Amino acid sequence: MAASDLDALVAISPENVTYATGAVIWTQRSLRDRLAMVVWPREGEPTFLVAGQEAGYAGEQSWIKDIRSYVAHGDSPIRALASALREKGLEAGRIGIEMGYLSAAYHQELAKSLPELQLTPCESIFQKARLVKTAAEVELLSKAAVATERALLATYATIQPGDRERVLVGRLAENMLATGADAPSFLYMTVGPNTGYAHPSPTDYVAQPGDLVKTDCGAFFSGYQSDIARTAVIGKASPEQRSIYERLVQVHAKTIEAMKPGVAAREVFRVAVEEYKRVNIPFSLAFAGHGLGLITHEDLLLSDSESAPLAPNMVFAVETRVRWPGKAGYHIEDLVVIGDRGPKKITTFMDTEELMEL
Amino acid sequence: MAASDLDALVAISPENVTYATGAVIWTQRSLRDRLAMVVWPREGEPTFLVAGQEAGYAGEQSWIKDIRSYVAHGDSPIRALASALREKGLEAGRIGIEMGYLSAAYHQELAKSLPELQLTPCESIFQKARLVKTAAEVELLSKAAVATERALLATYATIQPGDRERVLVGRLAENMLATGADAPSFLYMTVGPNTGYAHPSPTDYVAQPGDLVKTDCGAFFSGYQSDIARTAVIGKASPEQRSIYERLVQVHAKTIEAMKPGVAAREVFRVAVEEYKRVNIPFSLAFAGHGLGLITHEDLLLSDSESAPLAPNMVFAVETRVRWPGKAGYHIEDLVVIGDRGPKKITTFMDTEELMEL
Repeated sequence: MAASDLDALVAISPENVTYATGAVIWTQRSLRDRLAMVVWPREGEPTFLVAGQEAGYAGEQSWIKDIRSYVAHGDSPIRALASALREKGLEAGRIGIEMGYLSAAYHQELAKSLPELQLTPCESIFQKARLVKTAAEVELLSKAAVATERALLATYATIQPGDRERVLVGRLAENMLATGADAPSFLYMTVGPNTGYAHPSPTDYVAQPGDLVKTDCGAFFSGYQSDIARTAVIGKASPEQRSIYERLVQVHAKTIEAMKPGVAAREVFRVAVEEYKRVNIPFSLAFAGHGLGLITHEDLLLSDSESAPLAPNMVFAVETRVRWPGKAGYHIEDLVVIGDRGPKKITTFMDTEELMEL
Repeated sequence: MAASDLDALVAISPENVTYATGAVIWTQRSLRDRLAMVVWPREGEPTFLVAGQEAGYAGEQSWIKDIRSYVAHGDSPIRALASALREKGLEAGRIGIEMGYLSAAYHQELAKSLPELQLTPCESIFQKARLVKTAAEVELLSKAAVATERALLATYATIQPGDRERVLVGRLAENMLATGADAPSFLYMTVGPNTGYAHPSPTDYVAQPGDLVKTDCGAFFSGYQSDIARTAVIGKASPEQRSIYERLVQVHAKTIEAMKPGVAAREVFRVAVEEYKRVNIPFSLAFAGHGLGLITHEDLLLSDSESAPLAPNMVFAVETRVRWPGKAGYHIEDLVVIGDRGPKKITTFMDTEELMEL
């Protein structure tokens, strides 16, 4: 904000409210109109606005002292925001707000309520602040990564032919909490032909010997996220399964190897594309990985359109995968922190060098 | 739409995309910019727009034949929407779109890309269509309700002093999948002093004899939701715990009793407020319950500001609760379908008449 000409920043997304306050307000995610917001003026103290139901908890969790509440389904949260801005003398101020999160309807309500307010998108300010992680953030993301691997390995270790896919997904959710997560974020554990889909609902498919088990999963830890993917086979892998997996391992290793500080994100993507071609695995997605932190996909995206360079203390999810819808799919996803001299994997609990046989 | 002057409807929220297509696109929830959309013209066939990753799965799940995909992180989803509108000759049409879901940034992008487009909010059309449930919807919501009760009872049945709150939450998530859910939606299971909060993160608090266990939880079933709350005590209930609970049971019963077809939603709320007063339990929330379906809080809200009458085949969550932050909390939430002559509970698996002792 110091480098901008803004009079105040308003955070409204779950990620930036947590970033600004230290608190996690779960209903932001599940009840769309139950906004939580932070008004952060250039001068003076920030104000944290939540629904009445969350006020006591927000007070316990946040370092912000000025917590105000509106009556959910009584007041409009935008009216509460307008009051807070007016009280801070900002009714004609230049305000940075998350236009990618604020709904068009709320935007119109706010503009009508404070017609002299100048609203401008502020996502880039938050994204820039969140891009390079602090040591504490790297530590939290590393612990979260390993906890999620432990939950997944604990689940894989119990899989038997005859297990229902849906029950396995539940077991993974249970193990996530047992290893320290606050909640599952996503649980795409698929078996057999379902591995051909990226993000399907779980089914009652019964696991058979020879089936692939592919998991792309993540959980929440104090508002931060994990995101890993692993592929295994029930029983003995076929030569074809082994061949596809081994070729993906090569792509994956080369992609990670390229992740040196100073290298442009798009260079890493290009290395991945080249490697898929070299090992003859089809690849048509627009990214080979993404930043990770308070949201699952944060800057930088490892894509052809991202020219920014990697820098120390950025954290990435590197994703190597192939899918044939309704037939088969393979996915390896590791988390990597960029060090001064090169990449370091923070997913260290499960070995992904060989296709795991269950 | 037939009763409106719109040339097309555009669904973009998870609930209305599922309502219009029959498909569940999970990444709509977890990756904010990965839009899924349905363009439904007054004349002609609807078009379903998804990211490439979801196209195969969307084709399997939906009855809509015209499925198109954009490259996630490559194309802008709004560009794909604009193309579809243009192709249907709707570039200057009057389009109903969900302005409460569409972000202000995407709204501006769409308006810039098709400057003659007339955009108008269309939430009320979908809400009206979803308000009275079909027989199939009532059956699905009833099955979902009982499945969630079964998951919760299975969890309560295993609680022992010494259990960690976080582990119990994981067990609930596991049981939800085992009893048929596709994913947990929310898992607010709290123990002891944490019952004083509505929606906290789970902690490593260790359950003690005499502790309350309060759960407000829900799960997804083919895109539809469940939402129930139950309170129990570990070991013997104290006279005070029993007294508070018994008084809430009275409020709860009277509130449900009032839910006859033709009665205004606000009347139900007023009955609840009167009852809280009569039994001397503090109540300051703005609603006594809410409609339930594809989202957790859908119309009608049982609040003082809702004058619409209850009608047969509406489904409601009735919530009776009291909380003292950081100290104690009690919550009973049942699902009710309005019948021709009166309310019928569809949460039938757990008895809530007495405070359950574990």
